[in-house]
Amino acid sequence: MAYRNIVCAAFRDPTGPVFYAINPANGEALAGEFHRASLQDADDALKGAEHAFQEYKNINKDTKAAFLRAIADEISWLGDTLICRAAEESGLPVGRLQGEMGRTIGQLRLFANLVEEGSWVNAIIDVALPDRKPLPRADIRRMMVPLGPVVVFGASNFPLAFSVAGGDTASALAAGCPVVVKAHPAHLGTSALVGGAILKAIEKTGLPPGLFSLLYDDGHTIGAHLVKHPKTKAVAFTGSFKGGNALIQLSQEREQPIPVFAEMGSINPIVLLPEAMNNRAQTLASQCAASIGLGAGQFCTNPGLMLAIKSPSLESFKAGLAEAIKEMPSATMLTPGICENYGSLSKAVLNANGVTLIAESPLVNTELQSQSVARVATVSATNFLNNKQLQEEIFGPYSLLVIAEDTDELTALVASLEGQLTATVMAEKSELHNYPELISTLTDKTGRIILNGVPTGVEVSAAMQHGGPFPATNDSRFTSVGSTAVYRFVRPIAWQDWDDDLLPDALKANNPLGIYRLVDLNWTKQ
Amino acid sequence: MAYRNIVCAAFRDPTGPVFYAINPANGEALAGEFHRASLQDADDALKGAEHAFQEYKNINKDTKAAFLRAIADEISWLGDTLICRAAEESGLPVGRLQGEMGRTIGQLRLFANLVEEGSWVNAIIDVALPDRKPLPRADIRRMMVPLGPVVVFGASNFPLAFSVAGGDTASALAAGCPVVVKAHPAHLGTSALVGGAILKAIEKTGLPPGLFSLLYDDGHTIGAHLVKHPKTKAVAFTGSFKGGNALIQLSQEREQPIPVFAEMGSINPIVLLPEAMNNRAQTLASQCAASIGLGAGQFCTNPGLMLAIKSPSLESFKAGLAEAIKEMPSATMLTPGICENYGSLSKAVLNANGVTLIAESPLVNTELQSQSVARVATVSATNFLNNKQLQEEIFGPYSLLVIAEDTDELTALVASLEGQLTATVMAEKSELHNYPELISTLTDKTGRIILNGVPTGVEVSAAMQHGGPFPATNDSRFTSVGSTAVYRFVRPIAWQDWDDDLLPDALKANNPLGIYRLVDLNWTKQ
Repeated sequence: MAYRNIVCAAFRDPTGPVFYAINPANGEALAGEFHRASLQDADDALKGAEHAFQEYKNINKDTKAAFLRAIADEISWLGDTLICRAAEESGLPVGRLQGEMGRTIGQLRLFANLVEEGSWVNAIIDVALPDRKPLPRADIRRMMVPLGPVVVFGASNFPLAFSVAGGDTASALAAGCPVVVKAHPAHLGTSALVGGAILKAIEKTGLPPGLFSLLYDDGHTIGAHLVKHPKTKAVAFTGSFKGGNALIQLSQEREQPIPVFAEMGSINPIVLLPEAMNNRAQTLASQCAASIGLGAGQFCTNPGLMLAIKSPSLESFKAGLAEAIKEMPSATMLTPGICENYGSLSKAVLNANGVTLIAESPLVNTELQSQSVARVATVSATNFLNNKQLQEEIFGPYSLLVIAEDTDELTALVASLEGQLTATVMAEKSELHNYPELISTLTDKTGRIILNGVPTGVEVSAAMQHGGPFPATNDSRFTSVGSTAVYRFVRPIAWQDWDDDLLPDALKANNPLGIYRLVDLNWTKQ
Repeated sequence: MAYRNIVCAAFRDPTGPVFYAINPANGEALAGEFHRASLQDADDALKGAEHAFQEYKNINKDTKAAFLRAIADEISWLGDTLICRAAEESGLPVGRLQGEMGRTIGQLRLFANLVEEGSWVNAIIDVALPDRKPLPRADIRRMMVPLGPVVVFGASNFPLAFSVAGGDTASALAAGCPVVVKAHPAHLGTSALVGGAILKAIEKTGLPPGLFSLLYDDGHTIGAHLVKHPKTKAVAFTGSFKGGNALIQLSQEREQPIPVFAEMGSINPIVLLPEAMNNRAQTLASQCAASIGLGAGQFCTNPGLMLAIKSPSLESFKAGLAEAIKEMPSATMLTPGICENYGSLSKAVLNANGVTLIAESPLVNTELQSQSVARVATVSATNFLNNKQLQEEIFGPYSLLVIAEDTDELTALVASLEGQLTATVMAEKSELHNYPELISTLTDKTGRIILNGVPTGVEVSAAMQHGGPFPATNDSRFTSVGSTAVYRFVRPIAWQDWDDDLLPDALKANNPLGIYRLVDLNWTKQ
């Protein structure tokens, strides 16, 4: 493994101060001296990215697909070396990381397929109408083109699927944009391994080296410099509300505005309707508990809030929940800092007016550090409605059950919610029709609405929406998961009366790519 | 004509100070006492808009289309009353305003057709795969839904097509968003007449009154309040760079970020290639002059810059241009202030290093005020490259011809340009292949690229892109003209395993709307 900063697909001689990745389970430094990148490294990375963009923006779609597949292959060949390093750095279980590695490879191949198929460019053609009165219509052809260099911030909670070659990088490369990654300091070795895989893929496909850079920093200097850099054309970030807000504010200091996509935090409410509660309180309790505890509660879609109406069956739901939580062994959190935050916030919330603990797990692994135990608490709707702070995300295996007196109060709870990535309704089909206002309001608050499932487990597909109203993200019009994530990094251009030979292939008269195009308002491959 | 502020489709009793529309051609106040809206008016407008949104967001698509058509009909019935008031207020010729009225009505009907056809919601369906290994896939269905109340600022230069019921309003209403319009103070009566037309359309279709408000202000208080208001979910603006930037900065003070679309200014370069210049210098001169002078040069796509290589035929182009400009009668500008600015800027530029006048029109109508005369100037590429200020828009019938020594210098000129709404190439087809770098760079700078046409005259169609890299707009990913303008005001939601009866019609299993949908990656009406 090479630990040096990668600038334009080449390792840099180290200059900056040294720092190390820490194993959260034992607090020890892992192998590898990482060097803080310099501002010059960042400038060179973006200069190379801008240069590479001139070639890459027009690259043959099959070459682009081959590149994405080559990255996927190189990552898969890293095998257990990658899995074990990621496990040591993140404290995540090997099984979870194997799944995440599969997802990362799958995402790259999904975007390879998207690019190869080609219709994603949304070609729209209005053919000339020379005889139209009073004025003829020109021939106008429009498609999506890439924006330019994209800065990606690795996310702490997905060391593979939302990091160096994760969804942001895959979708930016698919769009036709070079990528500069700021590695997350919590998984430096994982980042280095995946960075090496991308390097090999660039070599094998003969693409320009400026397509990819990977910079390390244990502080915020490099990240801030990248966000404010005039050559940066878009930024993708997944992390905390505080971190996302800081990036947004930095970006507002720019002379030229650029899109910044910050996926920041969500408490993913689950609304439990009475008939479902009455019919299957135990099943619901098991489902909710499993989703709360999954991956030590460190998913963006972790259900941190449950809303229900007071009833006898709610009592058995609470009992079932308590039982399941108490059987949940402690888990290593991503970093000692995240663990400390979780511990203090999930305890402090119990001091809030009316909040009482339902259960916490007693099963603490004392051999390991950075251990979180699952906690669930409850509060009345009245107290919840009077305390906005109870809507703040507590990152970890925590959830709050809010109990309403009746349907009206349940609807009021939903109306009080901030924007969310997901919202879930647990209901019998027969009762769904009784809650039109509640469901309509809940839909307004979220990017994805789920019936009788759990919010954790985000499908990577064409129809997925992972992004919701503020503060879940800063721009609910885009998604960071699924194939439409590519649209974060493109803009349309219209060619008017342009020479057919010089048009991009996607817009040529005879449709040489055989893609779907909207021609005079009809979708056709002709 | 009623001159009162319209809040939620009802006239308000006047409270604020009185102001008047001014006829720029004679400096006199026109009929009608307009009252500055109060902050309470603005609050009530947005409160009503939020309320109306709850009904309108789910409205039947045929009702929405009928509403848009009713607005178009009501405007058409205003006929010459509207044309004459607009002419008095804007100084624009009746012929131009008749065309603009046609465009305004056409836009509304275009969006009515879009909404009625229904496929614009971009339904994407990934059907469930219950047997998939290792995990089953849920049924996921995604479509675009409206954002909520949109604030529209009337543009000075399109009193009809980009004002009260212009492209921004039409696309927002088509998306499913209520609209609060801040009237442009230069055409108050025109705004009042069109506002009245929308009122009648709301009455006739029985839609909620909160769908539309129209507020007057001779200052910036109301506009600023609307942009910062928590209930506002998007802002659309067409105007100056200064005005757009002010709105963007105001929006950055918001707690909740929202999309702000500012179309701010562009000098729309025309690149004249040598063979074309050699073969048809006179024709090119006439085309350019006509586009420069059109509507007193007050179009967003006015060509304020021409780039060419030194040659003998360029001299005859210059002579032809001078001749055409000298035959151009003066024209009334939109407001006395705009006229004053144009006069001082188009004269001051002649003091810049190396800039010399090619021609200005001597034909000044001394009977009228606010008269602009066309001016064209020239400068060497070297001097242009050394003076960034020469790229600043001079709003009016002005253009600067920049003369390069050779192809390399012409390419350098293109590379130096800021972002543009449009870029035009005048060329023989045979020479186009000789300028790959120039054309590639020019394409990077613009939202629309035109061959052998003029940039003025923007088709309102599906493939149009009216929006380009900063500073032409603040967000090149969207358009303010054409049917895809609707996408400024929507976001996607994904429904997961949702009950078919409760899904929006666009997503139901049997496709009751018969729209195009991307089902398992195929566009189909099945």
